[in-house]
Amino acid sequence: MADKNNEIEIEIESTDQVGIREVATNTDDLTDAFGSVGGASTSSYHNNSYGSGAIGQLANSNGYGSSASSYHKYVAKMVTDRHAAEYNMRHKHRGMAIIFNHEHFDVPTLKSRAGTNVDCENLSRVLKQLDFDVTVHKDCRYKEILGAIEYAASQNHEDNDCILVAILSHGEMGYIYAKDMQYKLDNIWSLFTANHCPTLAGKPKLFFIQACQGDRLDAGVTMQRGRTETDGDSSMSYKIPIHADFLIAYSTIPGFYSWRNTTRGSWFMQSLCAELAANGKRLDMLTLLTFVCQRVAVDFESCTPDTPEMHQQKQIPCITTMLTRILLFSDKQKAPAGRV
Amino acid sequence: MADKNNEIEIEIESTDQVGIREVATNTDDLTDAFGSVGGASTSSYHNNSYGSGAIGQLANSNGYGSSASSYHKYVAKMVTDRHAAEYNMRHKHRGMAIIFNHEHFDVPTLKSRAGTNVDCENLSRVLKQLDFDVTVHKDCRYKEILGAIEYAASQNHEDNDCILVAILSHGEMGYIYAKDMQYKLDNIWSLFTANHCPTLAGKPKLFFIQACQGDRLDAGVTMQRGRTETDGDSSMSYKIPIHADFLIAYSTIPGFYSWRNTTRGSWFMQSLCAELAANGKRLDMLTLLTFVCQRVAVDFESCTPDTPEMHQQKQIPCITTMLTRILLFSDKQKAPAGRV
Repeated sequence: MADKNNEIEIEIESTDQVGIREVATNTDDLTDAFGSVGGASTSSYHNNSYGSGAIGQLANSNGYGSSASSYHKYVAKMVTDRHAAEYNMRHKHRGMAIIFNHEHFDVPTLKSRAGTNVDCENLSRVLKQLDFDVTVHKDCRYKEILGAIEYAASQNHEDNDCILVAILSHGEMGYIYAKDMQYKLDNIWSLFTANHCPTLAGKPKLFFIQACQGDRLDAGVTMQRGRTETDGDSSMSYKIPIHADFLIAYSTIPGFYSWRNTTRGSWFMQSLCAELAANGKRLDMLTLLTFVCQRVAVDFESCTPDTPEMHQQKQIPCITTMLTRILLFSDKQKAPAGRV
Repeated sequence: MADKNNEIEIEIESTDQVGIREVATNTDDLTDAFGSVGGASTSSYHNNSYGSGAIGQLANSNGYGSSASSYHKYVAKMVTDRHAAEYNMRHKHRGMAIIFNHEHFDVPTLKSRAGTNVDCENLSRVLKQLDFDVTVHKDCRYKEILGAIEYAASQNHEDNDCILVAILSHGEMGYIYAKDMQYKLDNIWSLFTANHCPTLAGKPKLFFIQACQGDRLDAGVTMQRGRTETDGDSSMSYKIPIHADFLIAYSTIPGFYSWRNTTRGSWFMQSLCAELAANGKRLDMLTLLTFVCQRVAVDFESCTPDTPEMHQQKQIPCITTMLTRILLFSDKQKAPAGRV
């Protein structure tokens, strides 16, 4: 399938990895072999626990897309020209948006999340304005979450632009909480890789997570105005990595608290909804999320005067992107009456 | 310093974190206390090993900016209006670009990285074209790397737009290799947080890493054209989180190989340099990096026919951003003759 004579790499390659022996490489010879892999090398990391960060979790996908499946050939329908600058957002439907809203928990140490329903209603409203087909799941157990995700991944997304999943819950380093137990985010997103969900291949797969990633605090730094400061190509087919086109927007950086106002909702969801409402069809996703980061970073500060060590703290969201094109939610025609 | 009556959150807050007891919260009362923190809670994660991903490493910063320092007050000079859309790139100098180029290693299992000098020369050239003050460090031991970083962090960056650090080396999950040993990326970037390096507060801090993050392979999915498919506000001061304004661009996702052509250099650095050269002063950084991801994802595929399990594999870079404004390297006046 790959266009070997044009844009695909055809010379010898090395991986920047320990333990790979390079055999008789001659960099001037196009047909030289790469080398050989040490016997135990390709599986040595698979049992490690390396899914602890927002994106550390990306690796821990239960062997999906691992070297074990290297020999399979996956084919999906091309939805965008190979070098198109923008994602194709002209499908019949925008796509599914699935919100998991967690207020109450069975786990004794987890208190109810006052304010989360405000987040959920705001997010649901702005996503509908952006033409998403929104479904809200309230206080699900892990098996119910997995069931809803498996159902979504099994659907035919051929007529959809993209998919969006939002999770509003408690969390700690590497884990998010369902009503009954903790789980890793990779258990969710890994079901949507291009090999598992071919009708979403080449389309944006967006994940928005409001949850703590630890218990560290960011005391911030005050920016003070200085006295004199005034500054204000296409072919018939091409191959993509199965992990391309994901975006994971986490409310906070790994190891840190994520703040929620019990009346107005979390800082991150307040900011995200405000930006989506104001600029959702005007700015591309990464620019929009940059301004979400700005809102959270400069407009919010904790106010807990009776708990001095928690008082006047700051937060910065953490956006991880594997998107390969500009993502813009342009206007969409109303769906036909017969839409399922 | 914070403008409490205007944009700063003044109501009760909760953190989405386990183990925080909420005491007598009344969400309708502006002066209600947040609650109290369990005794051991604020330090329970500090000794965990949670720095294993590209961004998992963000958390593991040796207590910098942790709750232990919550009571300190840090003040830095405001370099941009609070709600400016773009970073201020009109300082006298663009800033330092420090490249750590690793070809040979003392660690016996690490083979020499053929092709890295091509990467280094390309990157150095395009960064100079973007007006960076480029320094290259070749085959440094860890102590030398740390020394160079500490020196850079101790400098006065008041007249600089930003800082950029690039590392070209071997790596594995959570670690990068110096000539003599492995280290965590957070040991590097944590020296530049706004509290440690106030003259870079509010300015972009950019990290580009070419290294493996594991030994998994992405077999990719082929995108095939369907037969009928035709689609083609400012105040005198404001506070920011000390972890804001970082960007970490990793050549690959956590757990996966990163590919390097022994003649032409790594896929990621080839793509990054091509984009910076073509669009470095025309596109904002996140759009530019989106196209770097596109180049790596669609234009490259491994060619190791004698090692079938490594053959025809794909790669996707992983961009993690805490930037709060649009970053554009616009044209810069030539520095005065007396520039150091």
